[in-house]
Amino acid sequence: MDLHLETDAVEGRRAGLERALRDAVRGGRLAPGERLPATRQLAAELGVSRNTVKAAYDQLVAEGYLTARQGSGTRVAALPPADDSGPPEAAARARAPRFDLRPGSPDVGAFPAAAWLRALRRAIATAPSLAYDYGDPRGRIELRTALSGYLGRARGVIAPPERIVITSGYVQGLALLTRVLDGGVVAMEDPGLPFHRDVVRRNGGVVVPVRVDAKGARAQEWRDCAAVVVTPAHQYPTGVTLHPERRRALTDWARARGGLLVEDDYDGEFRYDRQPVGALQGMAPGQVVYMGTASKTLGPALRLGWMVLPPQLLDAVADAKLHSDHHTESIGQLALAELIDSHAYDRHVRACRLRYRRRRDQLLHRLGARRRVRGIAAGLHALVEVDDEARVLARAEAEGLAVGHLGEHWHAPGGEGRPQGLVVGYGTPRQRVYPEALEVLGKVLDGT
Amino acid sequence: MDLHLETDAVEGRRAGLERALRDAVRGGRLAPGERLPATRQLAAELGVSRNTVKAAYDQLVAEGYLTARQGSGTRVAALPPADDSGPPEAAARARAPRFDLRPGSPDVGAFPAAAWLRALRRAIATAPSLAYDYGDPRGRIELRTALSGYLGRARGVIAPPERIVITSGYVQGLALLTRVLDGGVVAMEDPGLPFHRDVVRRNGGVVVPVRVDAKGARAQEWRDCAAVVVTPAHQYPTGVTLHPERRRALTDWARARGGLLVEDDYDGEFRYDRQPVGALQGMAPGQVVYMGTASKTLGPALRLGWMVLPPQLLDAVADAKLHSDHHTESIGQLALAELIDSHAYDRHVRACRLRYRRRRDQLLHRLGARRRVRGIAAGLHALVEVDDEARVLARAEAEGLAVGHLGEHWHAPGGEGRPQGLVVGYGTPRQRVYPEALEVLGKVLDGT
Repeated sequence: MDLHLETDAVEGRRAGLERALRDAVRGGRLAPGERLPATRQLAAELGVSRNTVKAAYDQLVAEGYLTARQGSGTRVAALPPADDSGPPEAAARARAPRFDLRPGSPDVGAFPAAAWLRALRRAIATAPSLAYDYGDPRGRIELRTALSGYLGRARGVIAPPERIVITSGYVQGLALLTRVLDGGVVAMEDPGLPFHRDVVRRNGGVVVPVRVDAKGARAQEWRDCAAVVVTPAHQYPTGVTLHPERRRALTDWARARGGLLVEDDYDGEFRYDRQPVGALQGMAPGQVVYMGTASKTLGPALRLGWMVLPPQLLDAVADAKLHSDHHTESIGQLALAELIDSHAYDRHVRACRLRYRRRRDQLLHRLGARRRVRGIAAGLHALVEVDDEARVLARAEAEGLAVGHLGEHWHAPGGEGRPQGLVVGYGTPRQRVYPEALEVLGKVLDGT
Repeated sequence: MDLHLETDAVEGRRAGLERALRDAVRGGRLAPGERLPATRQLAAELGVSRNTVKAAYDQLVAEGYLTARQGSGTRVAALPPADDSGPPEAAARARAPRFDLRPGSPDVGAFPAAAWLRALRRAIATAPSLAYDYGDPRGRIELRTALSGYLGRARGVIAPPERIVITSGYVQGLALLTRVLDGGVVAMEDPGLPFHRDVVRRNGGVVVPVRVDAKGARAQEWRDCAAVVVTPAHQYPTGVTLHPERRRALTDWARARGGLLVEDDYDGEFRYDRQPVGALQGMAPGQVVYMGTASKTLGPALRLGWMVLPPQLLDAVADAKLHSDHHTESIGQLALAELIDSHAYDRHVRACRLRYRRRRDQLLHRLGARRRVRGIAAGLHALVEVDDEARVLARAEAEGLAVGHLGEHWHAPGGEGRPQGLVVGYGTPRQRVYPEALEVLGKVLDGT
């Protein structure tokens, strides 16, 4: 029998033989009904013990590849036709742009790898064995306690640990909440991130638009819905800070109608010209679901986020989390708790704030006073007004520059006379390529 | 003005003042409409600069706690009534049992902390910056490539990397799949784990039972459903290995009806008396969704699992994953890839297999030949037949012993003449307490 028998130290002879037999059956080299050699004969051919061959035959009988009947020996089973899996698709990836000023990511080149590794080491050194078992769907108490202090101090959030649920990022928080609202109408800012609208829809929610003007989300538009999702600190993508009147109108609405406010505080740590505007949640902790993440401060890859919930939603969200993925991975949670408790997190955020502020200043300097640039007080992106998005984008593409634009953020296409602008994510590039990316952006804008 | 002003190095004076003001407004010490002292006056009182006070007032105006009107100075805003959040609930935790032989967890005391930390260090040392950004919803290619080799070698799974989706554990895989089936009928083994039925229902699926007999899941019961979920290597909780006839019947059904088989290979690595029975998936990769995890081999806390998918489901599952949580945390994925590629994972699994096999042997030895113990060829639990579950459980509880039982696994209550038994999770206890736990189990059984 012609078997391609190759074993390695890890799998051992029997496993190697089994694999070779399986492959031969699957590949058709052993035809259905074909009788296999006697164990003694194959053992001699292959230079293995008869028991090894016997065990391999038994195994493949158990798996259904072979059949063994008294008197007729061991035969290849009548295998169903091979699956037509098709060839692996050629990964049709979009070619990476030379310069990336798209919004949504921080400079991942600034990920504090050494500090994170130290935090992991301390977390693993001090974790009790039970930390490696299934845990609380709301997340580790160590992290919830650390966040409780941090969020109060840095963002004015009223966040007792028992009201926090740790998630695997903002998207998961939004998905869980939508599912808890069970098909409810969710009002979302227009313009806003299309992906987040998709997340709500895919989890059973109905999305309605709330227009955004110079004061932020417009009050009159959220009347009849279960929840309003807003980005008060730095509206995405316009960069507007929600006006105090609107903050008041929102919380009044929520109290009067029993509606829910969802505060997406995605870049609240990064405010440049004065202290961060405190979270909306601090004014109405019974009406607001506050959501933050480590995606902009550390890196999106960690998939670490948190929700601070009104008491009436706590059990439902924890239950939805349990039935989605049990709980978020524990060791990263313990490491983040270490990082916060040791103040290394604050130090890192402050260093990033300085760096991003400098980038923002460079952006403003390069674009000059003739360009109107909005949303510059905070965050990792700014809105650069232009007359004709399409023309600017075409030029940008020709220069190898990827950049966001308002047009991709509206709920519905069309809309004559809408503002137009580039959404410039100045946090995205690595530090060393930022000046060049900025230069290309400047050239593109100068030429239009 | 009586402000409790305490600042620390981290937050600075202005932030400390803001917090104190916020607390005073929230706590009612500053009443709505009350006029705040002039900035110059408060600055002198507190020994801070006037700019600091001015900035703090501005900030709280922006947040809606204060109002500032030309001519009337800065006043406390008419805050809505404080939320009645109620006191934090006393955590009503079930008291931990003295001895825990419940199934479902491995010995987390055996978590290879040093090896995992080494793998994390290597992962962080070699990861490109982009590894800290958002990633592929299917997971890191490094891990999918490592798993492709491992699953082929260890479990006979046909798993090209492009067919693998990394999940945050089995529950998430089951939830994603249920959502892709979009309300379809899912047949699940009876008895089986109630939590998994809940997961299917909570994600919109309809659950129907498939009875399990001495050969495993009964073929005639899965006729009209979208998917059948089975545990072929070691049925949970009976411990039966799916008979070759049934394997064949399942794959025939799937091919003829276009049905889907979901293979929950939760403890397939742990087979004691011969090589592991290869995965069902190897016989019908176009019909089977294979799911495995690191929960039993390393620890549930890592929340790392994998699905090997038929090509026609790949895009839908990856898309569901994207809209659930973007992707699974990346650094743990890279560490597991390191662990597999360095063969440290295989070594750890082999060491665990020896340890658990010894525990199984100790269990059999202690219970003696008079007890019928089933499902002992594999896994981390065995089924110990008893005449009266309720009586045995009462005795166990009195002895401080927690143990599973068949009764909690049926789809529906009642059912006269059903088999009765304890589901003994001999993997769960720490190594040093296992002998004592076993002794208590023996006593409980001897006395009934």
